[in-house]
Amino acid sequence: MHTLVSLSHTSNEWLSLFHVYDINPNELDRDDAGFETQVYNNSVCKTPNINALAKRSLIFKNAFTSVSSCSPSRSAILTGLPQHQNGMFGLYNTVNHFTSFDGVKSLPLLLKKSGIRTGIIGKKNVGPENVYPFDFSETEENHSLLQVGRNITLIRQYVHKFLNQNKSSPFFLYIGFHDPHRGYHTHPQYGIFCEKFGNGEPGMGVIPDWKPVTYDPSEVEVPYFVQDTPVARRDLAAQYTTISRLDQGIGVVLKELKASGHLDDTLVIYTSDNGIPYPNGRTNLYDSGMAEPMLVSSPFHKTTWGQETDAMVSLTDIVPTVLDWFNIKYPSYNLNKQQVTLTGKSMLKLLDTKPNTNWDTVYASHNLHEATMYYPMRVIRTREYKLIENLNYLMPFAIDQDFFISPCFQDLLNRTHDHQPTNWYKTLHKYYYRDRWELYDLVHDPKELTNLAGDPNYNKIYTSLQSKLKIWQNVTNDPWICSPGGVLQNSGYYKYNPTCFSMYNVC
Amino acid sequence: MHTLVSLSHTSNEWLSLFHVYDINPNELDRDDAGFETQVYNNSVCKTPNINALAKRSLIFKNAFTSVSSCSPSRSAILTGLPQHQNGMFGLYNTVNHFTSFDGVKSLPLLLKKSGIRTGIIGKKNVGPENVYPFDFSETEENHSLLQVGRNITLIRQYVHKFLNQNKSSPFFLYIGFHDPHRGYHTHPQYGIFCEKFGNGEPGMGVIPDWKPVTYDPSEVEVPYFVQDTPVARRDLAAQYTTISRLDQGIGVVLKELKASGHLDDTLVIYTSDNGIPYPNGRTNLYDSGMAEPMLVSSPFHKTTWGQETDAMVSLTDIVPTVLDWFNIKYPSYNLNKQQVTLTGKSMLKLLDTKPNTNWDTVYASHNLHEATMYYPMRVIRTREYKLIENLNYLMPFAIDQDFFISPCFQDLLNRTHDHQPTNWYKTLHKYYYRDRWELYDLVHDPKELTNLAGDPNYNKIYTSLQSKLKIWQNVTNDPWICSPGGVLQNSGYYKYNPTCFSMYNVC
Ligand SMILES: [Ca+2]
Ligand SMILES: [Ca+2]
Ligand SMILES: [Mg+2]
Ligand SMILES: [Mg+2]
Repeated sequence: MHTLVSLSHTSNEWLSLFHVYDINPNELDRDDAGFETQVYNNSVCKTPNINALAKRSLIFKNAFTSVSSCSPSRSAILTGLPQHQNGMFGLYNTVNHFTSFDGVKSLPLLLKKSGIRTGIIGKKNVGPENVYPFDFSETEENHSLLQVGRNITLIRQYVHKFLNQNKSSPFFLYIGFHDPHRGYHTHPQYGIFCEKFGNGEPGMGVIPDWKPVTYDPSEVEVPYFVQDTPVARRDLAAQYTTISRLDQGIGVVLKELKASGHLDDTLVIYTSDNGIPYPNGRTNLYDSGMAEPMLVSSPFHKTTWGQETDAMVSLTDIVPTVLDWFNIKYPSYNLNKQQVTLTGKSMLKLLDTKPNTNWDTVYASHNLHEATMYYPMRVIRTREYKLIENLNYLMPFAIDQDFFISPCFQDLLNRTHDHQPTNWYKTLHKYYYRDRWELYDLVHDPKELTNLAGDPNYNKIYTSLQSKLKIWQNVTNDPWICSPGGVLQNSGYYKYNPTCFSMYNVC
Repeated sequence: MHTLVSLSHTSNEWLSLFHVYDINPNELDRDDAGFETQVYNNSVCKTPNINALAKRSLIFKNAFTSVSSCSPSRSAILTGLPQHQNGMFGLYNTVNHFTSFDGVKSLPLLLKKSGIRTGIIGKKNVGPENVYPFDFSETEENHSLLQVGRNITLIRQYVHKFLNQNKSSPFFLYIGFHDPHRGYHTHPQYGIFCEKFGNGEPGMGVIPDWKPVTYDPSEVEVPYFVQDTPVARRDLAAQYTTISRLDQGIGVVLKELKASGHLDDTLVIYTSDNGIPYPNGRTNLYDSGMAEPMLVSSPFHKTTWGQETDAMVSLTDIVPTVLDWFNIKYPSYNLNKQQVTLTGKSMLKLLDTKPNTNWDTVYASHNLHEATMYYPMRVIRTREYKLIENLNYLMPFAIDQDFFISPCFQDLLNRTHDHQPTNWYKTLHKYYYRDRWELYDLVHDPKELTNLAGDPNYNKIYTSLQSKLKIWQNVTNDPWICSPGGVLQNSGYYKYNPTCFSMYNVC
């Protein structure tokens, strides 16, 4: 038995996926009437290869990331622990240099110990190395990220090499496609979304396995959380083109899997790390930043192929799922003197025919993206409600370098500055300044626009969600459990009785 | 030629030191009339050994830390780079796990490369190991911190071992006394300040080299920035006792140096890492948190022994000083693609008889203490003025676990909560909520109580200091240079022209 986790960089792939399987946007949040007309029309962006994978998969309509930022999310995917528990509080790269705690027992580490051969191809963006060791590693650490993350011919060749190195032992292969991440910020010469990289035009190079698909900005459908303007449409059209590269990449990778003879004994999981790089997307924990694609393809559960499930799952469920697949037990150990417990569950249970209950709540937790972008949030989401706590709420929401310089966000800034209509569903001011507590009724307000946290009619659900969220923070050893306005004592006299003390007079 | 940097944990030692040399507190900030009556009466706390060292030293009346937090300050001391430049944005220990960038060329690294034997004894609290390698290392990484940081007999034995391992090669020895750090937070059994550890009482153990000195709370003198209450006085008296352990530790260490035959060819630097653990002290960049003791004892500059200097120096001057002493050039290199330049200067120049100018401005930079305590500050201090920028100013100032649970701070909290007089010069509310910009006239307002940032009479000095501070942030590659309210672009089109862009509508 093998596992192939195919991870695309940002979650826009669900657009094509959900189209094909006729999952209307209102089905994403099952009870959310009024949601569907304002999201992408998924019939525009063509993804035949992901479609084909979905025909062999159980399709999750309610999958969520545990944090909408690259390294923190990848750390949660690979450890099963939220970012605040595994230590990867923000991005791993350059000046940010956040890392997981040295003692974390990650998926590659546990698999390696059980004799399973591990590989990673494409974007890694987590560390330190001793926590995330892979037997086979072709990533930005030894290549240009553009090449190893977007050149699908190179990716295919590395997949071929990995699959043919050792044909007898079980394996785990993690493929991190860098498409459809924005590229303008660092490599403007390749276009807004790096959509020209390898397209055969002069100076752009050639990726032999890729047949670029282009789109007219007028034909894209603009999601409800992005302004409908010519500039935003150009961003979306450019991104659709990179999705054609991603989709064809999935195709050649799955062809390699088939050629290796392992298509019928390999579990394939397809998902993403964070929300799309648009307003309310990446770095946000609104549904627009939190919802993810998730395909789980098991050759031993053909009855689930092409089926949909509305079970609410988190990316922290991937570690229990893969351990379950290989029949490996998660070890008992401490981190920073606190017991580590996985809060996720194996999704393989959902592949059985028995009715599955208890898949109706997910949690999320964000601290930073770049080191300068301190904006911790804690979230509980049920089928009907979402509660967000913004811990640094008096300061404006932080904007990252990559997204800030994007045409789409510049368009919002310029229109706001020039007192032009933004064609957006929020103001910049509302986007920047958030209440400490945000409570949304996802059934009647799927766009999460009306904060019910102060509404006495919702007091019962509000306090109940607060209490559940606090319990989860406690179970996951959240260092921020007393923030804001309190200080945690958990040593000396409080070693066996950790307690939040109030600072008084604040918040 | 050798160097011995003797580092005490918190800066309260200047109290005794300054007393003996009759440096009145108003001379600390030379022009600050009205300051002296509200600080410690340094005649109380006895430190004969530090006094003896001062008689062989140039005594700095205007030494300042570049950040008032343990690991960030130690990283700045050992790299010569402010915390925002070397990457140690907060504490190294436990869940905080901040580290310096892998590429940083630290003092021990540079000395090692030049064939100088390096040693560290006592508290280290910086990492990663590859950035801070020492040939000889007896620290909290291989011992109990209590033992290696407070047991002066053990410290003496390790110093003896280091000095006698290799008598011919030049050496650099860094000794990190953990006294007079608070101890109640983790080890309440040893008293408020760990003042009973090794005092010979039942269960307290014995430190043979230490003769404890005790003080009556009524006799201590309370600094102007601490409330004068019985509880605060008990904290101070307990701390004075730990200073007797520190002082006697300095004594036995210098005796070992003498016995090794190296007293007359070794440069000895005595300083501290951050402000005392009281309100307005550690984690603050008011002078109460920023001023540090600094003794520089050179056997080749006997004319300076017992002399005082009012040159303004920073702990980031230590690296240039030690490199100068050994005649080693700081290398040219990049960190995160940006050129690294030392902004400090060798203090050996101040040991020459020539008049020294250009020692009249220091800078400071704080990001976090614990990982949850995001409160970045940037500071410029001249002889007459201080300008502080608080980047997260809308949120309350953060309080650390160790200080929060101290009797002194609990006393402030309880008195505030119970509407009792605090006998303090500030309110908790003023302490928590700070303006974005704070400008103080240190001559007329040495307690830094009246913010002149909005006063049109001070507009010229205000804008001039703002501009100098921004230049320093630029030279030291500060990732926070555009915060708050702006986003830095420094790649792609902005690679050779880094630019701050405004978020609009914020701050
Ligand atoms: Ca990402
Ligand atoms: Ca300290
Ligand atoms: Mg990223
Ligand atoms: Mg400390």
